[in-house]
Amino acid sequence: MTIASLALRSASSSRLSSAITSGKFSSTWINIPSKRFFSKSTPKTMRFVQYRTAAVGNKQLLGVLSEDGTKVSDISERYGGDLISFIRSEASLEEVKALATKATPVALDDVELLAPVTNPQKILCVGLNYSGHCEEQNKPIPKEPMFFSKYATTIVGPYDNVIAHKISDQIDWEVELAVIIGRKAKSVSKANAMDFVFGYTVAQDISARDWQKLRNGGQFLIGKSMDTFCPLGPAVVHKSLVKDPHQLSIKCSVNGVEKQNGSTSELIFRIDDILERVTQSITLLPGDVILTGTPAGVGMHRKPAEFLKPGDVIDSEIERLGKIKNKVVADS
Amino acid sequence: MTIASLALRSASSSRLSSAITSGKFSSTWINIPSKRFFSKSTPKTMRFVQYRTAAVGNKQLLGVLSEDGTKVSDISERYGGDLISFIRSEASLEEVKALATKATPVALDDVELLAPVTNPQKILCVGLNYSGHCEEQNKPIPKEPMFFSKYATTIVGPYDNVIAHKISDQIDWEVELAVIIGRKAKSVSKANAMDFVFGYTVAQDISARDWQKLRNGGQFLIGKSMDTFCPLGPAVVHKSLVKDPHQLSIKCSVNGVEKQNGSTSELIFRIDDILERVTQSITLLPGDVILTGTPAGVGMHRKPAEFLKPGDVIDSEIERLGKIKNKVVADS
Repeated sequence: MTIASLALRSASSSRLSSAITSGKFSSTWINIPSKRFFSKSTPKTMRFVQYRTAAVGNKQLLGVLSEDGTKVSDISERYGGDLISFIRSEASLEEVKALATKATPVALDDVELLAPVTNPQKILCVGLNYSGHCEEQNKPIPKEPMFFSKYATTIVGPYDNVIAHKISDQIDWEVELAVIIGRKAKSVSKANAMDFVFGYTVAQDISARDWQKLRNGGQFLIGKSMDTFCPLGPAVVHKSLVKDPHQLSIKCSVNGVEKQNGSTSELIFRIDDILERVTQSITLLPGDVILTGTPAGVGMHRKPAEFLKPGDVIDSEIERLGKIKNKVVADS
Repeated sequence: MTIASLALRSASSSRLSSAITSGKFSSTWINIPSKRFFSKSTPKTMRFVQYRTAAVGNKQLLGVLSEDGTKVSDISERYGGDLISFIRSEASLEEVKALATKATPVALDDVELLAPVTNPQKILCVGLNYSGHCEEQNKPIPKEPMFFSKYATTIVGPYDNVIAHKISDQIDWEVELAVIIGRKAKSVSKANAMDFVFGYTVAQDISARDWQKLRNGGQFLIGKSMDTFCPLGPAVVHKSLVKDPHQLSIKCSVNGVEKQNGSTSELIFRIDDILERVTQSITLLPGDVILTGTPAGVGMHRKPAEFLKPGDVIDSEIERLGKIKNKVVADS
């Protein structure tokens, strides 16, 4: 969506706000007239978004959502427009809350939501981390996690398009819980690993299976790192609002048909375990993004296999974190 | 080296400068009393360095080397202290030269050289890109390149230590020509690919072979991305000073014993080819670093296999670009 289209979009504002506030999470997908969705049961405060408004043009702003999820308060003047810079500043949440309370919020319908975190130094992904996803490909439960990476140029916003790159005809979905790192982390132990987490968001680990599996000498990099292959959002929800990140329902549908429906309780290697293992040799930095793996139901392992094509719409949802919606478009 | 040690080091300044200016490139390794080396035949201008001085403490400065390679002129006031920001500014080299001429240069001996590029969004590596390196592991010449990545937390300076991480006992060397991207590049063709290059530097693609090959499900990421596994430097040499990047001798020695001695003329996939292939689906950004592969002679494929241990010193050198020297230290 471009700034130019904002005027058009705001025509449906009141209808949208009403749909958002009346939304009920996770029982069924909810049809709403716009692309936005923060349900009633989503935690009420300390949900961070990056966004633009027609008034400021291309400038990226940082904001926090109002309790009802219909408005956003700009906190850029004090902290800058970038979530990672904010995380690095180690500002207190109390200070942010006070600031947001004083700000004049703008309607969410009048802004363009961007990815809530952009240009992290790392995107670290865990393969085969849900038992069901191991079973569907007849692989044993791994004894240690398998890590791979995506480049940050894959990141797009919660309602942005995913490009069906011409060089692949096996583009697939993978809804994932994304962990955002809050503090520099090296040699952390499981016992205190969660202290290094800032928050969580919804991710799609879009994958070109032909390049991931058959090309590039078996290295996943290219198949995982094509531009637009990491939609994120809609907000980074602070960890204080997510009591147990290992008890969240996680779902993905394509064109309204449910494809994945699991729970983060199925994670084979939990967040604290991942952090302990990775930071034995690799320093994680504020804003680094960890994609924790995907549940069963990806396209590649369906019978027959299914892949994404231009026009398809992917809905990805995680309990308490919200929902993102991305359309697949042709490579131009 | 810390700022505190600079005073101590400058005691040997005059001896060092004399050794640098009288250095002769590439016939033999040259013993110099310090860790610095810019040879007489290294191109004289538009070599960019990032550095610190005792006077400015931890602040990173950006400078250009003098023609004889013994002095550095600070250009940070106009461009900031970061090479990538400078590249993004698209400043003209004429402007930089004029600025450097007016500046009062400081002796190279009185500064601490850092990696000449830090925190690129991407480090993209090409595997199996020298015929000799394919032969030594009995692998056929690949029909298409194999790409993998390193995280930017691997980058250290030209004379910094490499950590022998406790979790590996198979740490190996790989001298490589590094290409620094100068402009945002997507869907470039071979014919104009070199327009997107900013310059070149010397890299070590340090690798934990056990993690690269036997652990992590066959994905290279962890074995390639441990902290300190990418020494870079000593300078980023602008492409205008490197007539043919595919005609440079490239060498590596460990503890003074030559281990690798090749030429970038052996590259199977040349720089323009790499850029065309990668940018079909991945956008490269200013400052992105491409490691183009390593010639024969790595430790893993020697008979018997050799690996690095604390105390070892790795010298890595590329014609026209300079030499870096890194000591292996124990994991603390």
